[in-house]
Amino acid sequence: MTARKRIALISTGGTIEKTYDELDGVLNNQVSVLDVMLASLTLEGVEIVRVPLMNKDSLEMTEGDHDLIAKTAGAMAEAHDGVLIVHGTDRLAATGERVHELLDDLGVPVVLTGALRPYQLRNTDAEQNLTEALLAVQILPPGVYVAIHNKVLAFPGVVKDRDRGTFVKQA
Amino acid sequence: MTARKRIALISTGGTIEKTYDELDGVLNNQVSVLDVMLASLTLEGVEIVRVPLMNKDSLEMTEGDHDLIAKTAGAMAEAHDGVLIVHGTDRLAATGERVHELLDDLGVPVVLTGALRPYQLRNTDAEQNLTEALLAVQILPPGVYVAIHNKVLAFPGVVKDRDRGTFVKQA
Amino acid sequence: MTARKRIALISTGGTIEKTYDELDGVLNNQVSVLDVMLASLTLEGVEIVRVPLMNKDSLEMTEGDHDLIAKTAGAMAEAHDGVLIVHGTDRLAATGERVHELLDDLGVPVVLTGALRPYQLRNTDAEQNLTEALLAVQILPPGVYVAIHNKVLAFPGVVKDRDRGTFVKQA
Amino acid sequence: MTARKRIALISTGGTIEKTYDELDGVLNNQVSVLDVMLASLTLEGVEIVRVPLMNKDSLEMTEGDHDLIAKTAGAMAEAHDGVLIVHGTDRLAATGERVHELLDDLGVPVVLTGALRPYQLRNTDAEQNLTEALLAVQILPPGVYVAIHNKVLAFPGVVKDRDRGTFVKQA
Repeated sequence: MTARKRIALISTGGTIEKTYDELDGVLNNQVSVLDVMLASLTLEGVEIVRVPLMNKDSLEMTEGDHDLIAKTAGAMAEAHDGVLIVHGTDRLAATGERVHELLDDLGVPVVLTGALRPYQLRNTDAEQNLTEALLAVQILPPGVYVAIHNKVLAFPGVVKDRDRGTFVKQA
Repeated sequence: MTARKRIALISTGGTIEKTYDELDGVLNNQVSVLDVMLASLTLEGVEIVRVPLMNKDSLEMTEGDHDLIAKTAGAMAEAHDGVLIVHGTDRLAATGERVHELLDDLGVPVVLTGALRPYQLRNTDAEQNLTEALLAVQILPPGVYVAIHNKVLAFPGVVKDRDRGTFVKQA
Repeated sequence: MTARKRIALISTGGTIEKTYDELDGVLNNQVSVLDVMLASLTLEGVEIVRVPLMNKDSLEMTEGDHDLIAKTAGAMAEAHDGVLIVHGTDRLAATGERVHELLDDLGVPVVLTGALRPYQLRNTDAEQNLTEALLAVQILPPGVYVAIHNKVLAFPGVVKDRDRGTFVKQA
Repeated sequence: MTARKRIALISTGGTIEKTYDELDGVLNNQVSVLDVMLASLTLEGVEIVRVPLMNKDSLEMTEGDHDLIAKTAGAMAEAHDGVLIVHGTDRLAATGERVHELLDDLGVPVVLTGALRPYQLRNTDAEQNLTEALLAVQILPPGVYVAIHNKVLAFPGVVKDRDRGTFVKQA
């Protein structure tokens, strides 16, 4: 039997982590949406190491934030089989480019993902994107990627397409 | 912008396709669960060609059924960028082995998936497994695989682990 | 066995009817949210006659709209065992008062309901409120009521409590 | 503003309370399904006093169990504005009849409810029935009732209709 891959999951905030207040009365042990989603998946391929780095709407991220995330990804890449970054989609591409610049000789894949529609909506894309990123980080070669909406794109040159609400390769 | 991959989705029945009767009164246009799940995903990476081959509980599949599925997969592999087979889990591995034997020099990936817990259950694995298979078929090299429970395994030598309710590589 | 009650369900729009676009790709037979909710309930006590009167955000309702709804409720009350009005919550109380003024000697209950949180949200109150209104209209004596948030209040003197997001009796 | 009614909610087990194991990994604070459902409702009309009396499949209930439930309902009826009993549907009618025999001069309504399809199923009737019972117990006159499937029936003479999967008045 194959061993599970050890994946560092760096969370930084954004739509995908917006608070799950539905059952607050019952639960109030303050579980994050990310934990609820992870618990709802059957994860036979990965062992997840949670790294809750920050909790920011990505529109408010500074250059320092992008640097910090990239450096943390680099540090985690040394000690794990892959790195997953959960990120607000507005500045996700900026962080992706920074990871790509800073980490020239990555030995493992770094996969970014996020959500356009919050988990609170029945038609959220959060579960789909997290599922895809958790699979992609196991089978992609070393490099920096976004996995979202049933698609994987490699940095550099990935941008958010605001009109269509997804990510594309720059023309 | 990258073109979408054309994927043939061969459906054969099994738990993942069990009838969605919840809203029959309203809908009764007889949409299959598979169509409901596909409609709930944002699919930017694939263009799906539906091939509804049979609708069987896999426990009732004959040798002829396994052959038919394998040959259909081979034919579809010629004309598409990948093939996805939705299959009952009890005999999924038998079909996977048959595809592997028959199709020696596949030019594209053939990915099998299914579900252990029906879509009607809140804790179904159907959506997760379908999401994973739809991503895996885009990024894996040519070969025959099962994608399920956040894991990808290559044939030959894959078996269902009935105790744990998932798939593993044979020891 | 008791016969079912014949209930006229007058729909006027509002949050509870906001479009259900989740599965548009599959379904596009344009089923309204109200129909989806009705189909998801087991209704052994009522036979529903749908009267789709208008489809307005209640903030845009005119005096003429309130009159029209009240008169329609009166006409329906003549021929049914009860009347249910689905209404935007912002002007629901205004319509309720109008029904109460116009229809002095009602022989059956008229129950208004609506939703504060759209059906698209996982924590919607639409299903709860519709369920309550469908039961209340069977067992209340003749009169005009709002049934919402596990509570029944009789007109006149009902107002929306905007701070708490529900309805209360005027002090 | 009207004061909330104080309702004793006696839980006895049955389909409506079947374990909610979906998110066990995250939550494992062992919240019951009943608590999850109560937390998902907006309850402005009642203040609930939980009385977890037993947790039995009703098929295994003895005469002593029916007596115990009826006596507990009687005791709770003395001190509350209403009593709600959550019960397995197979023996719900037997308990209802016992409550009716034992408690001749009830001053408040006693409402029984249950579910035919477990909460784990997307098409469960548990939420609907609980919602209805919580409303019915506020507006019905004193007596013993079942509230289920959008219908209220008064004891004595209520039976489960096994073919149709609901409750009816005996012919």
